[in-house]
Amino acid sequence: MNLIEELAKLLTPGQVTANQTMREQHGRDESYHAMKLPDAVVFPESTEDVQKVLTFANEHDIAVVPFGLGTSLEGHVIPEKGGISLDFQRMNRILEFRPADFLVRVEPGVTRSQLNKELKQHGLFFTVDPGADATLGGMAATNASGTTAVRYGVMRDQVRDLTVVLPDGRIMKTGGLAAKSSSGYHLTGMFVGSEGTLGAITELTLRVYGIPEHVMAARVTFGNVKDAVDTAYEILAANVPIARVELVDAASIERMNRHSQTSYEEAPTLFLEFHGNEAGLNTDIAFVQELAEGHDCKSFQFETDSKARAQLWEARHQLAYAFKHASPGKHMILTDVCVPLSELTDAVLHARSQMDRLELFGGVLGHIGDGNFHTIIMIDTDNADEVARAEAFNALAVEHALERGGTCTGEHGVGKGKVKYQRKEHGASYDLMHQIKQLLDPRGIMNPGTIFPIE
Amino acid sequence: MNLIEELAKLLTPGQVTANQTMREQHGRDESYHAMKLPDAVVFPESTEDVQKVLTFANEHDIAVVPFGLGTSLEGHVIPEKGGISLDFQRMNRILEFRPADFLVRVEPGVTRSQLNKELKQHGLFFTVDPGADATLGGMAATNASGTTAVRYGVMRDQVRDLTVVLPDGRIMKTGGLAAKSSSGYHLTGMFVGSEGTLGAITELTLRVYGIPEHVMAARVTFGNVKDAVDTAYEILAANVPIARVELVDAASIERMNRHSQTSYEEAPTLFLEFHGNEAGLNTDIAFVQELAEGHDCKSFQFETDSKARAQLWEARHQLAYAFKHASPGKHMILTDVCVPLSELTDAVLHARSQMDRLELFGGVLGHIGDGNFHTIIMIDTDNADEVARAEAFNALAVEHALERGGTCTGEHGVGKGKVKYQRKEHGASYDLMHQIKQLLDPRGIMNPGTIFPIE
Repeated sequence: MNLIEELAKLLTPGQVTANQTMREQHGRDESYHAMKLPDAVVFPESTEDVQKVLTFANEHDIAVVPFGLGTSLEGHVIPEKGGISLDFQRMNRILEFRPADFLVRVEPGVTRSQLNKELKQHGLFFTVDPGADATLGGMAATNASGTTAVRYGVMRDQVRDLTVVLPDGRIMKTGGLAAKSSSGYHLTGMFVGSEGTLGAITELTLRVYGIPEHVMAARVTFGNVKDAVDTAYEILAANVPIARVELVDAASIERMNRHSQTSYEEAPTLFLEFHGNEAGLNTDIAFVQELAEGHDCKSFQFETDSKARAQLWEARHQLAYAFKHASPGKHMILTDVCVPLSELTDAVLHARSQMDRLELFGGVLGHIGDGNFHTIIMIDTDNADEVARAEAFNALAVEHALERGGTCTGEHGVGKGKVKYQRKEHGASYDLMHQIKQLLDPRGIMNPGTIFPIE
Repeated sequence: MNLIEELAKLLTPGQVTANQTMREQHGRDESYHAMKLPDAVVFPESTEDVQKVLTFANEHDIAVVPFGLGTSLEGHVIPEKGGISLDFQRMNRILEFRPADFLVRVEPGVTRSQLNKELKQHGLFFTVDPGADATLGGMAATNASGTTAVRYGVMRDQVRDLTVVLPDGRIMKTGGLAAKSSSGYHLTGMFVGSEGTLGAITELTLRVYGIPEHVMAARVTFGNVKDAVDTAYEILAANVPIARVELVDAASIERMNRHSQTSYEEAPTLFLEFHGNEAGLNTDIAFVQELAEGHDCKSFQFETDSKARAQLWEARHQLAYAFKHASPGKHMILTDVCVPLSELTDAVLHARSQMDRLELFGGVLGHIGDGNFHTIIMIDTDNADEVARAEAFNALAVEHALERGGTCTGEHGVGKGKVKYQRKEHGASYDLMHQIKQLLDPRGIMNPGTIFPIE
């Protein structure tokens, strides 16, 4: 069988390619994981196109890997068994605005910045903001989050309804438009975070929010990481409804200044943001200042005008790229553990000391309001010793988190890189996950090697 | 086989009974659904006890219905096929406090008021507050919510981890302690709301919150229901972070005054509550007052002291009982639709007019910040005509909601009463739910007749 010819007959010739450059673009993501090429790249334009491709692939035991923009960080989109990379770039329409319901319906190829540009005209915004300008389909697939999850929740909290196509060609809607429901099993929550292993998402109905009346941002620098993390913890413990609380360590600020032309003080820093009415914010901010001063903060710098605030968060979002651009030819390995809040300070200090011990260069940063933090390390994937040290470090961070009730991945997902920690994290429920995988995808065509090892 | 003898051998004789009174207490819930008796009532004292009972029941094809306090409203706990009512009243311990992580671990028989009494000592509270003082296991099983969901979310949002026992005897933990995770399928979300049809919950780790610095409550009366609902909608549309926004109509206030010895004005009313810092609340409240005045509110009455506030919410929680006690011998039928916010006013007015047309007496009330409202109707279950009219009304309300993207149940669950609407609401995904049911419970022993019809 000539795969390209068959797919071209199924759809149209212009929707299928085996061009080498295209295959390479769909062979890896933004992480250090090794490239594997798909046999074909397919561009569906509708749910029915996806149904045709999945039904065909299922009949012929051909692997299918849904692909958004390839910004994943654990090798999710790598076609471990070749087959079809299903690229949603042509399904990038905003299908319906329901501003009165705080809902929007989109195709999976819409990016978060594309959506926010449109929403702004309605006085609305979409909250979830990973570092990359990822597609919303990809963000749902990995249960992405970002800097605002501490206030507004993660991707799973924003998805009200999905249209999904199963490997056997069934098309179904998993939810509805109501703000809550106790009707039947929560399939929406199961497909969010399933990383393309159960089926393909072809439509999403998402919750959006009114742009807050008043926004204030601040940078707070400290003498050491511990004081920064302890301050963040106290803000949360005091129940301040903070919208963003990000840790950026000195090494990361240094990269940021170079990459984003900022001139922030190179010290352990909290980036904060407050949303609400002005009177309430002033009270909250005064209180947070007191807490920071209790930990000898060195400076408390407000970013009051919207331009400086935009620059602050743009620099934060660009941080992974700041590291990447400083190390041409190297690849990123990021840790992504999330721990119970009370374990956060210890976990961050443990990570920092282990990085130093293993002689790895990198930054510590993260969404510490959720107990989630990253270390970004640039490695030369041809240097076996460096790769081994980085992987050993990742394993140490994961072990440390799991022993304290945490998770191996707070927001990046399992992909290929965290498969090896699944059994330890989930125990007996990993078997149940596998049974569900087999129920929905008995021939194992959907993103093989992701979440579960290839058998 | 003598079921009682076998169960007594499996556990201890004191944990098993076939006493007629006991069987009757486990034969119905607080709704109008007809009683069916279990053959045995069993009181497990540990996860291992539950494992023994489920394994035994699965081997012998005996139905098992988990039972909390029997406060469900759609016949969830009715043992449609007899068998075992698994009563969790002896598993009512609070197992672990982690105030620093805003987490608590409990057994399923702990009630929400029991938990809140303990939490108060730590300056914490648990948010989910259905009308009944239900057990937390039951609340998780139905994905319960209540008056605070508009601010803090529903039960599913509070459950961080569950220990569940499957019919085949497997014991598993479904989650962890981290505030977020992208690791594996979201089994916790699937078990929450599964209404005892997939397995039995034997432990829950729940998110709790710091008691707000400042709390203000108010009663706002209007000339008609439409103005009340429109005001609520505008509060939400303006993004005011309100903690509670409840509609109580005039008929309900009248019942409330009689039952709870209150003397509230008998008019369509919004019960409001604000949580936050004082300065922020004052701004929010002034704004809400303006909105209410724009809809010609008749009065805006603050309940500033904590005693009056407690009375307000206690009266609200007792409302279903207020109707029940006013109609001795009658039984409750409640509608529980939830619609997109923009459809709320129409849905409430539609319900009111259909009740009048069908000559049904009842109140309209609800958690309208979520688009969820109830009508409470007391019926004589021996009066076939009255039952038929009430059921016809329920069906009309459900149809109206489903046609607008809503759900047949916002918080009470499917139980036995909403099985007939599942296909219409879920379409093809109802088949997938059924496949998942068969995967976990192939012999169909877990709460037969709930969510899915008995085959």
